[in-house]
Amino acid sequence: MNRFGMNVKFTAQPGQRDALADILLGAADALAGVEDCELYVVHVSETEADVIWVTEVWRSSEAHAASLSLEETKAAIQRAMPLIAGVESTKLKPIGGKGL
Amino acid sequence: MNRFGMNVKFTAQPGQRDALADILLGAADALAGVEDCELYVVHVSETEADVIWVTEVWRSSEAHAASLSLEETKAAIQRAMPLIAGVESTKLKPIGGKGL
Repeated sequence: MNRFGMNVKFTAQPGQRDALADILLGAADALAGVEDCELYVVHVSETEADVIWVTEVWRSSEAHAASLSLEETKAAIQRAMPLIAGVESTKLKPIGGKGL
Repeated sequence: MNRFGMNVKFTAQPGQRDALADILLGAADALAGVEDCELYVVHVSETEADVIWVTEVWRSSEAHAASLSLEETKAAIQRAMPLIAGVESTKLKPIGGKGL
């Protein structure tokens, strides 16, 4: 298996962190039935008030790419865009551990 | 529940990434029976040759702190120290998502 992972740092517009977090949690719910998505964990930063981190792990980069064409994903991105001031992604190759 | 999370970036000494990754995967195995540890996922970076990322999620910061006093954890840290050139941790507050 050639897993694909990402650490994504979202910076919300001022005062919009919780609204953005709700959308990301909704996106996670929508992925419940998507087997190729192993992790989509939403965190808020303990040190930066407007920052949300998402840890994603997918069975493959193709599975991740395919998810971006799902209607629910596209709708979530539409709703989220106005609330986002910045996005930084770190690509990862998950190799194992507890929770996969 | 007041979960505690961390994104930890380990920079290995040159040529020691895989040896360090093995120790971290061993640490993850040792946490299999520790219920308060929900995630301990080991990734290698897709862009930085000496970098390993660990995503940790714990039921509480107290549970995380207590794990540092486990004999297996202390032994793993001892083995890992000579292989580590740098460590950067980002504290997170996991709020939900797929995989928790």
